[in-house]
Amino acid sequence: MPDGLSSSDDRRARGLERLSQLGDEPGGAEFLARMGPLGDWIVDFAFGDVHSRPGLDARERELIIVAVLTTLGGCEPQLAAHIRALRAIQVGWEQIEEAILQSAPYAGVPRAVNAIKVLRTQQEEDDR
Amino acid sequence: MPDGLSSSDDRRARGLERLSQLGDEPGGAEFLARMGPLGDWIVDFAFGDVHSRPGLDARERELIIVAVLTTLGGCEPQLAAHIRALRAIQVGWEQIEEAILQSAPYAGVPRAVNAIKVLRTQQEEDDR
Amino acid sequence: MPDGLSSSDDRRARGLERLSQLGDEPGGAEFLARMGPLGDWIVDFAFGDVHSRPGLDARERELIIVAVLTTLGGCEPQLAAHIRALRAIQVGWEQIEEAILQSAPYAGVPRAVNAIKVLRTQQEEDDR
Amino acid sequence: MPDGLSSSDDRRARGLERLSQLGDEPGGAEFLARMGPLGDWIVDFAFGDVHSRPGLDARERELIIVAVLTTLGGCEPQLAAHIRALRAIQVGWEQIEEAILQSAPYAGVPRAVNAIKVLRTQQEEDDR
Amino acid sequence: MPDGLSSSDDRRARGLERLSQLGDEPGGAEFLARMGPLGDWIVDFAFGDVHSRPGLDARERELIIVAVLTTLGGCEPQLAAHIRALRAIQVGWEQIEEAILQSAPYAGVPRAVNAIKVLRTQQEEDDR
Amino acid sequence: MPDGLSSSDDRRARGLERLSQLGDEPGGAEFLARMGPLGDWIVDFAFGDVHSRPGLDARERELIIVAVLTTLGGCEPQLAAHIRALRAIQVGWEQIEEAILQSAPYAGVPRAVNAIKVLRTQQEEDDR
Repeated sequence: MPDGLSSSDDRRARGLERLSQLGDEPGGAEFLARMGPLGDWIVDFAFGDVHSRPGLDARERELIIVAVLTTLGGCEPQLAAHIRALRAIQVGWEQIEEAILQSAPYAGVPRAVNAIKVLRTQQEEDDR
Repeated sequence: MPDGLSSSDDRRARGLERLSQLGDEPGGAEFLARMGPLGDWIVDFAFGDVHSRPGLDARERELIIVAVLTTLGGCEPQLAAHIRALRAIQVGWEQIEEAILQSAPYAGVPRAVNAIKVLRTQQEEDDR
Repeated sequence: MPDGLSSSDDRRARGLERLSQLGDEPGGAEFLARMGPLGDWIVDFAFGDVHSRPGLDARERELIIVAVLTTLGGCEPQLAAHIRALRAIQVGWEQIEEAILQSAPYAGVPRAVNAIKVLRTQQEEDDR
Repeated sequence: MPDGLSSSDDRRARGLERLSQLGDEPGGAEFLARMGPLGDWIVDFAFGDVHSRPGLDARERELIIVAVLTTLGGCEPQLAAHIRALRAIQVGWEQIEEAILQSAPYAGVPRAVNAIKVLRTQQEEDDR
Repeated sequence: MPDGLSSSDDRRARGLERLSQLGDEPGGAEFLARMGPLGDWIVDFAFGDVHSRPGLDARERELIIVAVLTTLGGCEPQLAAHIRALRAIQVGWEQIEEAILQSAPYAGVPRAVNAIKVLRTQQEEDDR
Repeated sequence: MPDGLSSSDDRRARGLERLSQLGDEPGGAEFLARMGPLGDWIVDFAFGDVHSRPGLDARERELIIVAVLTTLGGCEPQLAAHIRALRAIQVGWEQIEEAILQSAPYAGVPRAVNAIKVLRTQQEEDDR
């Protein structure tokens, strides 16, 4: 049996636990249900298989996801959710901003501008 | 005078120092000269202004760059250079692979496959 | 005279007929007029030259377009229009969702999430 | 237990069976092993979870993947593999070309040119 | 001292002068301040280092930026700002539309549609 | 009859004439024939419909195409062909390099690096 193989109950449980550690988005369960099979894959694959792996910690993984979403563009709601996750695990605004700024020379300034806008909105909501 | 402003001598020196910390690619100076003004911007802007900032360390910044280049696609030589930079600062193969794997659900499997191929080639060159 | 060459009257007529088969978007003519020359190219090139070709049927072509728009990202209004076209030719919601889901491992989960959101909105409008 | 959940043995077996139906790339097993965890995810997730779903058949799914890879760009080896898969399930060259051509107005002509080049190379290898 | 090197005061002053020549967006200073370090880089790097170079004039550079933003997608506010800059330096609507139309075959029709929508909105605001 | 409509003979002739003005790539006719219907669309649509329009001249259009191809990435052969076209109409190396450099802050440094590499190779071939 290949090393990568684990029982799917483990995957689901591991994914949900990881999401819980990251602060469980308000409305997150409804969102995942609404997404259908794609919602299952987010829990089981993106969080259960990938995010829960050893080698990098949750903070490093979330900073990487912020950089990937900045680069992709057009994923502002997802970016906001991952910024909230970073805040939930006590990562400072400065570190999150640096992950976006570090993407700017490579992904281009407009993609970074779009991401900083999302960050600023989150910061303002946090201040209220 | 805005906070972000610094004398350009500082920028150049800071960029070159950062590149030196990251192991100075063999042929790197020739490459940068060949790139012309773009080569200056890589040193002054990408490394002098951005990479040298506080808030994240060189290792975290390089892992982020690996994720951004994986997501962009078509930047295999640059990806190889940044993998070598991570190795130069003693980051394990496992951590680099995890940065790529963590990009896969977001940037898509084919982009991750292209990046893992670059990683494997680097690992094999290292073994020789 | 090359095989690909046809009189432009044919192209325009063919494009308009194809659009009509696909249910003629409400406000579609106004949209195309507003787009100017680009609107002409949508009719003549995208629908008259390309979509009307033999080898794949309208349903297969529209499923492919849904996958391409999912991959591009940032084209939500166009995606909604092509989902409506698929509905107009009696393609089930399930098939449309599967075309998006099949894009997920390759284009990445966030692009698929954006597309499923468009699909769900269309389904809800349909239910009303 | 959520509907999307299945035992992981099923996923692996389903993925491998699907790959076998698609003609099992020469060197495919070596490639997947070389990819590490990403190779597991290709089998379990991309083929076991996604490709094996009902609602669209293998031919439709492979045509969609060809369109997505055409749109992404920079995935020529993967595109060649999926073209071979389509040939293995008796899909005509014409249908594969049409999937690429249908992507051209949306993904742009250069991406389609890159894909048609891959197709032509495959056709020439087939003729030999 | 490399040719590309200049004192950073020059860069800032040159960038601000270029922005001023391009009509100084209403709210532009507030926007740049809100962006933080990224705002500094927009002035110093994008306008001070790059846009102010000889070899192409401001009009040609802005048309190129419109084409790049059209191609990237998801940068509609930035595209609107650069269209306003082109108008501020007396470039006709026709030339701006042609820069977008010329991008269509290469970047794809949907990206061009998104850009023409931004252009039309700007034209309508101008008419009022 | 819409303004955008013209007889297709005009389109083909106009496209071929434009390609001829741009220096007719060596092997260009063979390449277009090999591309099949896509080759027809390059001549009729990309050059006959789009490139031949008034409002911008051939030089401006080619500089825009260079910027778009730089931004897309992964289109190095096409980029080389358009650089040769610019040279055929007497545009200086400096102007072509500036079009790429102007893309760098928006499309990101790695895309610009890939394009400058293509430019340098062309310059070296020209020197021989």
